[in-house]
Amino acid sequence: MSDKVKIVEVGPRDGLQNEKQPVSLEDKVRLVNLLSETGVAEIETGSFVSPKWVPQMANSDQVFQNISRHKNVVYSALTPNLRGMEAAIEAGAEQVAIFAAASESFSQKNINCSISESIQRFEPLIALAKSNNIPVRAYISCVLGCPYEGEVSHQVVIETARQMMDMGCFELSLGDTIGVGTAFDVDKLLRDLLKEFSPNVLAMHFHDTYGQAVANTLMSLEHGIRIFDASVAGLGGCPYAKGASGNVSTEDMVYLLSKSGMETGVDLDKLVAAGEFICQAIGRQNQSHVANALRASCA
Amino acid sequence: MSDKVKIVEVGPRDGLQNEKQPVSLEDKVRLVNLLSETGVAEIETGSFVSPKWVPQMANSDQVFQNISRHKNVVYSALTPNLRGMEAAIEAGAEQVAIFAAASESFSQKNINCSISESIQRFEPLIALAKSNNIPVRAYISCVLGCPYEGEVSHQVVIETARQMMDMGCFELSLGDTIGVGTAFDVDKLLRDLLKEFSPNVLAMHFHDTYGQAVANTLMSLEHGIRIFDASVAGLGGCPYAKGASGNVSTEDMVYLLSKSGMETGVDLDKLVAAGEFICQAIGRQNQSHVANALRASCA
Repeated sequence: MSDKVKIVEVGPRDGLQNEKQPVSLEDKVRLVNLLSETGVAEIETGSFVSPKWVPQMANSDQVFQNISRHKNVVYSALTPNLRGMEAAIEAGAEQVAIFAAASESFSQKNINCSISESIQRFEPLIALAKSNNIPVRAYISCVLGCPYEGEVSHQVVIETARQMMDMGCFELSLGDTIGVGTAFDVDKLLRDLLKEFSPNVLAMHFHDTYGQAVANTLMSLEHGIRIFDASVAGLGGCPYAKGASGNVSTEDMVYLLSKSGMETGVDLDKLVAAGEFICQAIGRQNQSHVANALRASCA
Repeated sequence: MSDKVKIVEVGPRDGLQNEKQPVSLEDKVRLVNLLSETGVAEIETGSFVSPKWVPQMANSDQVFQNISRHKNVVYSALTPNLRGMEAAIEAGAEQVAIFAAASESFSQKNINCSISESIQRFEPLIALAKSNNIPVRAYISCVLGCPYEGEVSHQVVIETARQMMDMGCFELSLGDTIGVGTAFDVDKLLRDLLKEFSPNVLAMHFHDTYGQAVANTLMSLEHGIRIFDASVAGLGGCPYAKGASGNVSTEDMVYLLSKSGMETGVDLDKLVAAGEFICQAIGRQNQSHVANALRASCA
């Protein structure tokens, strides 16, 4: 099994999109630039979504236009619809991501349509991406639990995943959107999913709401998963539990991986510095244990 | 392999001993009483150590005298020397704990003697405990790293453990005192230790300094470990990294275990309530992700 792990840094998008106070263009650009120097494989740099829905992401086009691109980093964007996809291409996104939920209730409440309908709506977007040679990643949310339904059927996760792969997505990012899953839930889900999909196309996207994200990462590694989404400084939150922890921090994940002899290519010190920068810039408490421990040791 | 897990709640001792502001006798007693109702197997209730060294534990005798004991709970105390052991018996401790380090430098810097000397000094204490039918638990600190030496030899851990078991201790609590270990370090250590010791006599004592404690718990479970120390609300800290996270929170650990079908006997809601009580009483931020998520969901 490969020792190489791909880290997808989602802080600038999934992390910052929940911040209430506007984050300046300058700070966003500097964050992406600092992250670019850490060695992460991919940075989700912004989202081309209506500013009515996510005002924090309104200037994603300017972020893309102002960053200094590193040749080893893929700069991606979330694109909920064709208009967003056009804007992402215009801004120079090298990869895009679309999303669906593994829960009918979540899909209905969030985007007013069924899971299948939501996926069908992405068809023209994927066609446009293909004609521009832009790879499309698929997010599936609520894979370990739904705020409305509770438990989520593995069969629905698999069906949703299959539809998105069949449409032409190259990678599936499986999100524990509300962070309720434990390693035992991950174990059961991956046993089922790996009957259908190669670990090479599966990424795990954990939230640390219940403190389980690093353990869930460990369990995923044991199943051969080598792609992980994470957010520097644990930026992000949970819209269903305001005040709770957000995405797993990239620092804590890289700490686990680097001490295990896995190759992430990531420089932990530079990563910690990027996290400290953005936390100071936006006045947020750093949620990374590693960052806090290193700062405390130095003091 | 057994599904029963023994939780040793160390918040009232290992957790509170690091608090700078004095915690009132009333609050300590109430905390122990609330914990007694949660279903934890054991509560480390206090420490009979010189108040010069640990002023916060000066009134442990009064704590023992004022708590309401639950028949299913063992109330234990840390006893660094014969005088402490006599005081613990006098106060009604049902079990005591002694300690050594798995690092010569740590032992020298902390108690001015070698590991072997430190263990020999416990001989009269153990004799006294035996004559009073009081079981003696052994803590071994720094098993996954030392603030002075860095990496710690598994052979030293095993030698220290063997000496303490040979002296008559019934259980070994292996402490990652500075919280630097990852699941891969735990894996390697337990592979070596389990050649010599039954998992039935091994407890793991994790600190969440680098955010690895729940993942380390998972790895220990996979090795058959079924005894875990934890601290409600993540009370505690790291004297070598002031401001860093402390002990693994009992809530986050119980959340992992209960969703895995393990039997802890612990009522998570009561546990969360006990943690919320002490955090409010002493003005401390709750370090349990589970507690924070549940509070946020209710709000």
